[in-house]
Amino acid sequence: MADGRVEHARPEGFEVVTTVSRSQNLDEDPAFALHRGGKLHVTSSVDVHDHEGLSLAYTPGVARVCDAIAETPELVETYTWKSNLVAVVTDGTAVLGLGDIGPEASLPVMEGKSLLFKQFGDVDSVPIALGCTGVDEIVETVVRMAPSFGGINLEDISAPRCFEIERRLRERLDIPVFHDDQHGTAIVTVAALRNAARLTGRTLGDLRVVVSGAGAAGVAVTKMLLDGGIGDIAVADSKGMIHDGREGLTAVKQELASISNKVGLSGSIESALEGADVFIGLSAGEVPESVVSTMAENAVIFAMANPNPEVHPDVARKYASVVATGRSDFPNQINNVLAFPGVFRGALDAGATDITENMKLAAATALADLVGDDLAADYILPSSFDERVVPAVSAAVAAQAREDGVARR
Amino acid sequence: MADGRVEHARPEGFEVVTTVSRSQNLDEDPAFALHRGGKLHVTSSVDVHDHEGLSLAYTPGVARVCDAIAETPELVETYTWKSNLVAVVTDGTAVLGLGDIGPEASLPVMEGKSLLFKQFGDVDSVPIALGCTGVDEIVETVVRMAPSFGGINLEDISAPRCFEIERRLRERLDIPVFHDDQHGTAIVTVAALRNAARLTGRTLGDLRVVVSGAGAAGVAVTKMLLDGGIGDIAVADSKGMIHDGREGLTAVKQELASISNKVGLSGSIESALEGADVFIGLSAGEVPESVVSTMAENAVIFAMANPNPEVHPDVARKYASVVATGRSDFPNQINNVLAFPGVFRGALDAGATDITENMKLAAATALADLVGDDLAADYILPSSFDERVVPAVSAAVAAQAREDGVARR
Repeated sequence: MADGRVEHARPEGFEVVTTVSRSQNLDEDPAFALHRGGKLHVTSSVDVHDHEGLSLAYTPGVARVCDAIAETPELVETYTWKSNLVAVVTDGTAVLGLGDIGPEASLPVMEGKSLLFKQFGDVDSVPIALGCTGVDEIVETVVRMAPSFGGINLEDISAPRCFEIERRLRERLDIPVFHDDQHGTAIVTVAALRNAARLTGRTLGDLRVVVSGAGAAGVAVTKMLLDGGIGDIAVADSKGMIHDGREGLTAVKQELASISNKVGLSGSIESALEGADVFIGLSAGEVPESVVSTMAENAVIFAMANPNPEVHPDVARKYASVVATGRSDFPNQINNVLAFPGVFRGALDAGATDITENMKLAAATALADLVGDDLAADYILPSSFDERVVPAVSAAVAAQAREDGVARR
Repeated sequence: MADGRVEHARPEGFEVVTTVSRSQNLDEDPAFALHRGGKLHVTSSVDVHDHEGLSLAYTPGVARVCDAIAETPELVETYTWKSNLVAVVTDGTAVLGLGDIGPEASLPVMEGKSLLFKQFGDVDSVPIALGCTGVDEIVETVVRMAPSFGGINLEDISAPRCFEIERRLRERLDIPVFHDDQHGTAIVTVAALRNAARLTGRTLGDLRVVVSGAGAAGVAVTKMLLDGGIGDIAVADSKGMIHDGREGLTAVKQELASISNKVGLSGSIESALEGADVFIGLSAGEVPESVVSTMAENAVIFAMANPNPEVHPDVARKYASVVATGRSDFPNQINNVLAFPGVFRGALDAGATDITENMKLAAATALADLVGDDLAADYILPSSFDERVVPAVSAAVAAQAREDGVARR
């Protein structure tokens, strides 16, 4: 509808669900008005309003299709929606900036994710918000549901559980499993940094990076930049720089310490930023102007905290050659929607059994290359609404899946 | 599309999934052609193709909606699709006449069910075919998924597990749980038998019924007819009549023996049918003409086995006043689609926390009453395509939910 409201068109005679009394005033906020009734529907272009349609789409005709799949299992890819269907799985423990709000309260975000999957990638998806938070429970539940789906998108599951959940699901399932908060963010960040380096006459190998935040995104960005050949990269959490010598690190941070921070930066992020080429903010913490001013020539600042960037872009621009944020009201928005629709579109098109590190790097490269000769300080990434993005990313991901031997098509 | 085929419309530049080579010849069967690409899509009427739409349907706007639900949980009913969303849950162990074909091969039937939910009841639903068959596993999995759904339709789960799975889910969940193979069949059968009795000047209390089949449908039909005040009813399984004195009965059949078969019929179904008023066939077994001929005056025969009724209608009509089958090519089709869309529509409209026995009886009564003065030997039920059915059934179910104190709206 014009005003974007979702409602259930009912044949005449239906009672209409109404809880307006409870929520009338909320609907003065257009975000609430738009969400009334939810944002998703399940539809079909098959008509079963006569006996012939019913006998083909349902009994007896459907039995022949079931028989064929029972006999030749791969036909499930051709004759059901499984091969285009992704489960958007969350436990509601790390939703946007809101934290642990539980499964029901996370549903509007998950519906939004499904909406983006459909409108950007023509991927059908269904929010599955789970009423459990244990790693074993979540893994078992997703494994049991998996026969119905062609892919699993993990969403807003808090660290460090998200790492083990994804690892175990990738081991157990032969369909793509992708934690968007990690890899979606990493793909777009790597693409942006490649272009920021190119703009300033450098390569990733020339850069020393400091990352603020050791959560899902911070860990994934760091690992992907290491795969991509970054010069050096060190990560700070709320207690300061993560390094080999630090006591009481979690398993995930110990691993991070062992693969990052070659020079062994310790102490505060402020001291680590002195002379650094790149700051990547993936936390809520603030970085004062006095510290930003100590960064190297041609600094690159990605301040991605929402809604308040770690460094305000107006301040960052005074010292940095390239500035990016997570916000749409500043140039160079680092937005996952540039990655996940194309990544899944490509993985599903190729019938990929996994999403490999190479496939993620291929997505980042394809995304960066779209900028081409238009590269500029305020244009290091294509717009979220650039229609070239999903075809380019999906083609690169599908091609890499075939090269990596994980494609079934 | 005109030919009912479902395909994924892709923006230009997309690779198109094609497995035509494998399945070309299958598509000469229109049932396969119609199933290519599956029968369902997830869609939305919200447009996020500009920054404003994105900022309302997704971040930052969506966060306000999540916050409101976290604070006032019942708002999930108003601002997400949960309150109109049903999970069609199966383990693929008892699919149509095909038996245990597993979760993937059951998907075309589950997609068909979702199609019927939508087109008949405007209920959104999603097939969830599980890769596990243990009662505990299925119950735990559905309980964990439940925060995402407004109702659970259990489908094609084999007996006797289906009884315990439904019982435990009804205990643990505060949303409607309904095993359609049991209660959908029972509702339509009871409606048909009420009208068959009325047509022949009798009430349910006047009738002695023999049921062939002690599976999901046989058990549910028997219990519902007892709730409805049937005169007497006895059930036969493959070993003959089920009665108190019989050895080695399963728990479910022991319960059946204790509540049915007042007169204690034993031995074969053939002998039990002598003088019986009603035969209800819910098995694959055949009943010979010589046995049908021994039934009482004004006999009623519901031979619901598909595709081959236990008694062919042409034979049944020679001895019975009223004959019904499960087939669309004979009069009086007993088809679950007359029940489940309206039952869930009504339960969801009322925000019912359960589907009570009264609600099922109310559905049967509303369905039977639609026939009104047009009642005739070849018209004891409305057509599956009668547009009055869902509004009448849903209104009756919602009203009864309120009367039974299980309605939240």
